[in-house]
Amino acid sequence: MIYTGLAVARRMETAIILCEDGFGKVRGKTAAGLVRHSLRFKILGVIDSGQAGKDAGEVLEGKRDGIPVFASVEESLGKLKSKPRWMIIGVATIGGMLPPEFRKPVRVAIENGVSVISGLHEWLAEDEEFAPLARKHKVQIVDIRKEPPLDKMHYYRGLAAKMDCIRIPVLGTDAASGKRTTAVILTKELNDRGIKTAFVATGQTGLLQGSKYGIPLDAIRGDYVVGELENAIDQAYREEKPKVIIVEGQGALSHPAYVVGSRTIVNASAPNTIVLQHAPGRKYRSYHAEELHLPNGTIDREMELIRAFAQTDVIGITLNHENLTREEVEAHIKEYERKYGVPVCDVLVDGPGKIADAIVSRYFPKRR
Amino acid sequence: MIYTGLAVARRMETAIILCEDGFGKVRGKTAAGLVRHSLRFKILGVIDSGQAGKDAGEVLEGKRDGIPVFASVEESLGKLKSKPRWMIIGVATIGGMLPPEFRKPVRVAIENGVSVISGLHEWLAEDEEFAPLARKHKVQIVDIRKEPPLDKMHYYRGLAAKMDCIRIPVLGTDAASGKRTTAVILTKELNDRGIKTAFVATGQTGLLQGSKYGIPLDAIRGDYVVGELENAIDQAYREEKPKVIIVEGQGALSHPAYVVGSRTIVNASAPNTIVLQHAPGRKYRSYHAEELHLPNGTIDREMELIRAFAQTDVIGITLNHENLTREEVEAHIKEYERKYGVPVCDVLVDGPGKIADAIVSRYFPKRR
Repeated sequence: MIYTGLAVARRMETAIILCEDGFGKVRGKTAAGLVRHSLRFKILGVIDSGQAGKDAGEVLEGKRDGIPVFASVEESLGKLKSKPRWMIIGVATIGGMLPPEFRKPVRVAIENGVSVISGLHEWLAEDEEFAPLARKHKVQIVDIRKEPPLDKMHYYRGLAAKMDCIRIPVLGTDAASGKRTTAVILTKELNDRGIKTAFVATGQTGLLQGSKYGIPLDAIRGDYVVGELENAIDQAYREEKPKVIIVEGQGALSHPAYVVGSRTIVNASAPNTIVLQHAPGRKYRSYHAEELHLPNGTIDREMELIRAFAQTDVIGITLNHENLTREEVEAHIKEYERKYGVPVCDVLVDGPGKIADAIVSRYFPKRR
Repeated sequence: MIYTGLAVARRMETAIILCEDGFGKVRGKTAAGLVRHSLRFKILGVIDSGQAGKDAGEVLEGKRDGIPVFASVEESLGKLKSKPRWMIIGVATIGGMLPPEFRKPVRVAIENGVSVISGLHEWLAEDEEFAPLARKHKVQIVDIRKEPPLDKMHYYRGLAAKMDCIRIPVLGTDAASGKRTTAVILTKELNDRGIKTAFVATGQTGLLQGSKYGIPLDAIRGDYVVGELENAIDQAYREEKPKVIIVEGQGALSHPAYVVGSRTIVNASAPNTIVLQHAPGRKYRSYHAEELHLPNGTIDREMELIRAFAQTDVIGITLNHENLTREEVEAHIKEYERKYGVPVCDVLVDGPGKIADAIVSRYFPKRR
């Protein structure tokens, strides 16, 4: 089904991203994703007072992309040549609540006639302050992480295993470790090689980026979640007739607090194989309660659970280079390639070539 | 936290159960659970026109319990000596929707001043027809499977592994296979033996039966579900100071459509060991789409997933005797005891003695 957030903007529409105290950090992953890649919104600017005056591309990867970072919504509206159509809430807060310091900028946007899109669990369109204010200023508030009505959702039907195409989820050893970025880059690479590949998003960032297929997986209650994701995969299969479907991963099979994502993705996609994303320089798991100091997931444990649960293998490992020098990344690549016998790369630096080679070699040998 | 449904009835209050076309069947498991065991409601009657005139106990286990089955709400109100305080929706429909043929009896109950309790996903208190009708007739509608507000929910804290008590979930090879019944009976047996044991419910029936601790697990979104169940287990631990906590299982690790329940229970309880419920006479999995003919889960596959995910063992196997003669049950008991080397019994017929013996022998050896 088409989720609310997907229906609002068929053409590219202009947007600013609210990412106070988060841009370039793990919690700003929605903003980072949109600055890197967006089929739906033309991003005019990012709001984060701590990074104000910088270039967004420079903050993310040290390469200018002409998107300015502003100190406030007011400043952005004053300095931009045209008023943006939307303001996107660009933080993935744990638990999905709106941080209190975000209330004022949301109010300012609405009062200035800028519509708001949010991927939070807390629904801004039903907020006691924002709802009447939006009516008064005739702007829209769209909550993309809202569950569809019960009678619009789908049950599990066991469709994936019968599809005549290769299904590859990009799973990971932790949440917020770069699975979506790897999945998007790998989808592009396979398409560039002439292998028609569809991407299915499972989180708010992928949906905001303009993915044609997908669901906000963690907004959907347990009885329906596998059926809803399966339905999105089936939609991609029927409409695109792809050779490969890449599914964005969520959480980790080994994450103690996030039990839904990875298992749903495995059950809904019946994977032929899996790409595994890992951040070797991450000491503790990405999770709200940082004082818990949950040790980061390991490749060994995640592979054990993938074997037990998905009953398939890992075709390649992709690395997130956070907290690592290039030399350290290269040492990990060597170590893992020797230990696991599969190609390993840092997709953002090396590109996804090695992983695409392995997929082509196994599933499309005539194209080599 | 105390869920809505738990707060309404501190003393035993009278109730009838609406179970049209479900009593004695798998989908009538909520009604069956309440007829067998209820600390909160005194059950005056069951509504199921197909079984009208029979005794409820006789339908369930061939043993009269004096609870009549009526053909309609009207008939029950005409024949019962006193008007029931509540009507409980006694079917666990797949997907949690109210069956259309239930609308009339719900209307009749409300119009006759009987309040309604529902464990469905579809919220009757917000229904366009029922909400104004309930206001008019001054009755309550309580939806127990409604998620608490975001700011009342708890995050995962990793509490269970540190508790000074034994935690034993009753998991199963399939949904709706008798896990809750086994868990309740085993809790009673251990308490009868002087080992203080608390029960934590994870579904609507357990909560309706009057469990002091628990959550409607499948109503809670993924980001919070482990933390909420962990919090209920922690409440039981702090308030009861038990030696053992038995946690009601949900679904199965091997069920393709139900991904949340069992994994949440494992992560939230950090089990010392597991009791595994199995229905050897069940050919296909309990699931809405019966035409899918998903083969029933096996003990081998479920044990494999328990070892991989929960990293613990199964201390005993409990059987559901549906579709089996007593001779067949006994043959399965022999076969499984030989194959798996653990005690096996049909709890409803044999009692839980063998399983309790194994628990006492391993964890409380001085009490043998």
